[in-house]
Amino acid sequence: MSNLPARKLRAGILGATGTVGQRFISLLESHPLFVVHTLGASARSAGQTYGQVVRWKVNVPFTSVVGDLVVQPCEPDRFRDCDVIFSGLDSSVAGEIETAFLKADLAVLSNAKNHRMAPDVPLIVPTANPEHLAVVQHQRARHSLKRGFLVTNANCSTTGLVVVLRALQDAFGPMSHVIVQTMQAVSGAGYPGVSSLDILDNVVPLIDGEEEKMESEVAKILGSVLPDQSGFQHLENTVVSATCNRVAVIDGHTECVSVKFARSAVAADGSQLPPPSVAEVRRVLAEYTSEAQLLQCVSAPKHPITVADRPDRPQPRLDRDTHGGNSVTVGRIRPCPVLDLKFTLLVHNTVLGAAGSSILNAELAVAKGVLKPLDD
Amino acid sequence: MSNLPARKLRAGILGATGTVGQRFISLLESHPLFVVHTLGASARSAGQTYGQVVRWKVNVPFTSVVGDLVVQPCEPDRFRDCDVIFSGLDSSVAGEIETAFLKADLAVLSNAKNHRMAPDVPLIVPTANPEHLAVVQHQRARHSLKRGFLVTNANCSTTGLVVVLRALQDAFGPMSHVIVQTMQAVSGAGYPGVSSLDILDNVVPLIDGEEEKMESEVAKILGSVLPDQSGFQHLENTVVSATCNRVAVIDGHTECVSVKFARSAVAADGSQLPPPSVAEVRRVLAEYTSEAQLLQCVSAPKHPITVADRPDRPQPRLDRDTHGGNSVTVGRIRPCPVLDLKFTLLVHNTVLGAAGSSILNAELAVAKGVLKPLDD
Amino acid sequence: MSNLPARKLRAGILGATGTVGQRFISLLESHPLFVVHTLGASARSAGQTYGQVVRWKVNVPFTSVVGDLVVQPCEPDRFRDCDVIFSGLDSSVAGEIETAFLKADLAVLSNAKNHRMAPDVPLIVPTANPEHLAVVQHQRARHSLKRGFLVTNANCSTTGLVVVLRALQDAFGPMSHVIVQTMQAVSGAGYPGVSSLDILDNVVPLIDGEEEKMESEVAKILGSVLPDQSGFQHLENTVVSATCNRVAVIDGHTECVSVKFARSAVAADGSQLPPPSVAEVRRVLAEYTSEAQLLQCVSAPKHPITVADRPDRPQPRLDRDTHGGNSVTVGRIRPCPVLDLKFTLLVHNTVLGAAGSSILNAELAVAKGVLKPLDD
Amino acid sequence: MSNLPARKLRAGILGATGTVGQRFISLLESHPLFVVHTLGASARSAGQTYGQVVRWKVNVPFTSVVGDLVVQPCEPDRFRDCDVIFSGLDSSVAGEIETAFLKADLAVLSNAKNHRMAPDVPLIVPTANPEHLAVVQHQRARHSLKRGFLVTNANCSTTGLVVVLRALQDAFGPMSHVIVQTMQAVSGAGYPGVSSLDILDNVVPLIDGEEEKMESEVAKILGSVLPDQSGFQHLENTVVSATCNRVAVIDGHTECVSVKFARSAVAADGSQLPPPSVAEVRRVLAEYTSEAQLLQCVSAPKHPITVADRPDRPQPRLDRDTHGGNSVTVGRIRPCPVLDLKFTLLVHNTVLGAAGSSILNAELAVAKGVLKPLDD
Repeated sequence: MSNLPARKLRAGILGATGTVGQRFISLLESHPLFVVHTLGASARSAGQTYGQVVRWKVNVPFTSVVGDLVVQPCEPDRFRDCDVIFSGLDSSVAGEIETAFLKADLAVLSNAKNHRMAPDVPLIVPTANPEHLAVVQHQRARHSLKRGFLVTNANCSTTGLVVVLRALQDAFGPMSHVIVQTMQAVSGAGYPGVSSLDILDNVVPLIDGEEEKMESEVAKILGSVLPDQSGFQHLENTVVSATCNRVAVIDGHTECVSVKFARSAVAADGSQLPPPSVAEVRRVLAEYTSEAQLLQCVSAPKHPITVADRPDRPQPRLDRDTHGGNSVTVGRIRPCPVLDLKFTLLVHNTVLGAAGSSILNAELAVAKGVLKPLDD
Repeated sequence: MSNLPARKLRAGILGATGTVGQRFISLLESHPLFVVHTLGASARSAGQTYGQVVRWKVNVPFTSVVGDLVVQPCEPDRFRDCDVIFSGLDSSVAGEIETAFLKADLAVLSNAKNHRMAPDVPLIVPTANPEHLAVVQHQRARHSLKRGFLVTNANCSTTGLVVVLRALQDAFGPMSHVIVQTMQAVSGAGYPGVSSLDILDNVVPLIDGEEEKMESEVAKILGSVLPDQSGFQHLENTVVSATCNRVAVIDGHTECVSVKFARSAVAADGSQLPPPSVAEVRRVLAEYTSEAQLLQCVSAPKHPITVADRPDRPQPRLDRDTHGGNSVTVGRIRPCPVLDLKFTLLVHNTVLGAAGSSILNAELAVAKGVLKPLDD
Repeated sequence: MSNLPARKLRAGILGATGTVGQRFISLLESHPLFVVHTLGASARSAGQTYGQVVRWKVNVPFTSVVGDLVVQPCEPDRFRDCDVIFSGLDSSVAGEIETAFLKADLAVLSNAKNHRMAPDVPLIVPTANPEHLAVVQHQRARHSLKRGFLVTNANCSTTGLVVVLRALQDAFGPMSHVIVQTMQAVSGAGYPGVSSLDILDNVVPLIDGEEEKMESEVAKILGSVLPDQSGFQHLENTVVSATCNRVAVIDGHTECVSVKFARSAVAADGSQLPPPSVAEVRRVLAEYTSEAQLLQCVSAPKHPITVADRPDRPQPRLDRDTHGGNSVTVGRIRPCPVLDLKFTLLVHNTVLGAAGSSILNAELAVAKGVLKPLDD
Repeated sequence: MSNLPARKLRAGILGATGTVGQRFISLLESHPLFVVHTLGASARSAGQTYGQVVRWKVNVPFTSVVGDLVVQPCEPDRFRDCDVIFSGLDSSVAGEIETAFLKADLAVLSNAKNHRMAPDVPLIVPTANPEHLAVVQHQRARHSLKRGFLVTNANCSTTGLVVVLRALQDAFGPMSHVIVQTMQAVSGAGYPGVSSLDILDNVVPLIDGEEEKMESEVAKILGSVLPDQSGFQHLENTVVSATCNRVAVIDGHTECVSVKFARSAVAADGSQLPPPSVAEVRRVLAEYTSEAQLLQCVSAPKHPITVADRPDRPQPRLDRDTHGGNSVTVGRIRPCPVLDLKFTLLVHNTVLGAAGSSILNAELAVAKGVLKPLDD
């Protein structure tokens, strides 16, 4: 990995007591580039030690060093000596707080939805569209910042989908139609989140706002950076139809996807290309690689996409931790009688689908020289 | 209900110890038309009382009368005095046994898949295509039977789907494309069926042979009876793409469906009709009725389709028992950005999706004069 | 059933939107003695129809009559024309509200814990200690009431236990020691209650305050009415040790119990009786009957206790609904190497363990002439 | 760790395709002392590669090296070049096969129950009674072996219990009475094991033979080696009463335990010691250490027992992986109103409770010079 800093970057974590915040802390334990330095949470928790206030739900305990940190209110002044800020804030407060942090020239990588669709805020899934990071320069210029920036990552369900769509789009050109149905884990709703009475022996066929997020975020992520790097050209001709369900799974979103490629439609001149074969798709997905691999980011999965061999895979319990939870597993690739092709994918919603993306985005920012230690 | 017999019909149950067989027994307790008379199971169980051999998994216990019945081998001679036979046999043995029962002039209603696609065997979902019963006359003629017949019901996932598709097709004409993704209950796999290690904190994205069944059965069920009543004209221009998943639910299959109507395609002359509106679809589904209602069959649900009001419904645990498990609940009716329309449906897989359909088919057969007491 | 009123009694339900309130409504649908008349809930819900505010979690829908009722604030004036009040209030508010209703001369049957241990408030499990109802006269005298009273039922876990202990105590004399470990359903915690993140693939080994409730309530329920009927003589020499756990079950508390009988201890004179045999215990439990059966209360289970034959029963999913959820199922009766005897019991925590007890207590009150229509 | 061999020991695994066998393979990946060398399974699997025949259920995939191994029949000749044999065989075949391996002078560490109670077979929980290994010399003499031996580890539920009981016994003397009630994970039953229909929304209050195993194994494990090291003196005055339940948990057995110390009984001379206080017990458990720690075995947990601080712990999902699954977590230490003291413990049933114990026992055997490379 290039641009390796001389020392570990001090990380501040906003929303540190929530489920995404807990995952940030867990993933940063023994991380070679970042060290947990300051924890921010609501006024209710501020002033007490992290160990006192957190209701820890990750299956590996936090260290006593983290447990002894005094929780701070989420104000930029308290995070002045942090080299990088990871935000796991709830969307009810993330908008204003993250803006304040950006204006204070802090480097923020956020998992919150609030700024994702803003014109000059990169919405980056690290193994799908890392090139979108280029817009940070414009962002800095517009806000007169020296080193701060705000980069967001995508909704957890969107994340798994776009890694695969990007690989397909690179190899076979744009898709005209995508139908996706999800079976999402309860951890995606935070804690306490989904009531046990709603999910034991049950499926909930609605996740508020989730389908809209999937349908809109794909167009930005799979789009391109404008030539002047001032923003993004969204994809215009890929129509996405999403249906989102909640199932009795702790971690790992499963998504059943059908796609149709633009090239397989009859063109104006009557020409028409066949859709790619299952074997071609399989090869393309297995061989897909991204800048995160090329730049040798420390959290980059060996493969952005893992193709499952067995016909009954991917399964959340068995495949979510593949390559540390940062690889998307794809299986059941087969023709779709209605569109061209269908397959099933699995993404670890709280690793690559949340905190893991933010951290990998930060690694990309370091590797590309966009994020440096404060004193550098 | 017309053609009410003078006495209760004596019912034989094949595969009585399996999950479908248990559901037959449970649904026939205190049934006004049928009474459990003879229980058939494998040679291993035959000769012992039902109470000794069954591992009962229904949440209402069986009566002592049923428990004291001596289990018979599945041979026609043992069922000579049964007016009607319900088959919950496993497909590994159902083919030959049911043929033998048919040839012995017994009236068989089967839940097994073996004969479903045979040219002169009606494949009937009672609230979708009861008119297919007419082919029984041809079947009798071909096999030289006086009162016997073989009528099958559909796969559990197909069942929920076709009730809704039939209502839509009647109102708006045929659909050209249907994409369906299921989240199926473990009871569909029988007992012991799905291992707990495969389903706790997990989803299994494959159910062997299920997608093929859904894709082929729809065409027969939504097709029509040939003018000479010798068989069926399958639907030819409705393409179905199915993806089937197993989830941690006891009973109740949830299905996310997207459909496109033939009328909304651009016709050769350039004309094109708009797809039906959500309000129209909602009204058509809520008002849909079938012969089972018109003939006042005793197990007929008040409505074949129940439209859920709440945006987060249907849910298996809360909606599967609606109208005794014989009504399909539909919710989340909304436009599909890719096809025309999408919605989510729920069917009780072991009631309407299995034993309940067979029983309601038998009631239809009584009401139409096709099934009568032996001595009638 | 004696003292049958000339008309159905009008029932008011406090806390009508909660899980216990929903169960009251569900159990009172088509009840021959009571009809839902007035629904009370928090100020936030008051003024809207029940259908608008409730998040219904019972698997049978409420009727449109109930759905159209306008929810009232929990003030006695709003319930003036109710013959009987069922309280499913949360303990954070039940104390004051129920006192106000009692002082307004209303007949209150409460599931809340607040007044259970008050000296002149009967704590009644209908199939264990119905004779405690006699103290209502004293209660009326003390508060100068004409027809009002306050009767509580027990904690859900206590309920299952005391029915069995009462049967044992009647037959074999008092127990000196009881050790009970529970595996309790999530519905006991209300809605949203237990987070899915806490219970999927998990057990929670603590339920706040539950063990204390079990240990104290048993002594009151198994105790006797004072000779002057002014209160209760608690049991003094039965020591109970309870350990309470939450497991991934919707409804139905399972309890593993070990007991030692006083008679099997070495007496001062060196005498000692053997503990009862498994066969004796089995017979005594199966034959146990209570005043609820003698008075032919309409909701009384055929047997207060159902003895399970199979060695792997009782199981929550298969046994909780026995006799409408009002019978306690007992299995695995066997010697305990440490105490005398051990067994496993199951109680439906939201039927007999909550709303069902209140309703059956009300039926007892009617049968005994303690509860009558307002105009009677 | 002393006696470190010059090279890794080649490990053979019997029953390699089962759940315990899979866990052996998983735990031996990158183990510093042992390397997977030969895999044995039933005749049905023999001759095919492991990758072809296994239905892998561990959430970390096996390596391609393991996947390419050709599975062997479980005959000693096929394992001649293995330094050590780990047996995860099913008890239906383990008895004879393990005896054959022992007679062939192979060093066998077994998880099967068959030989556990044999007089000269050590039954060792590595952090409870490692000193029982001394009987191996007698075993060798009796069977005229040079380097072979047969050491078993305990039932998964017994394992968690005896680690804690041993710590208590060492500090406070023997216990006279132990009552334990378990809530056991489904992985304990192997694959397919527990049917999903039996465990979703359910508890199964019986595990065949499990209670008997717990009650008998404790006496052997907590007993002592005979002075001549020819066998074991079982504990005689500790009575154990076990009740075993199956719950919807993947991995991790939870056990609720009440104990009474011999010292707190009234002695013949009327003297009586108070039971230890909660604080004393807490300290003793937290400070407990075993030979596995002293000998610095590589898989030894930092602490054999981890005392949970929070009142709602231990929980299977959050605590089972503590110290790699080889530490027992104890919480809720408090007085028992009936016996002296009660607490709740958690053991990872397929790590310390099965394969992990065998491996740690092998490490102990290496450290003590009992197990050496073949060519040593």
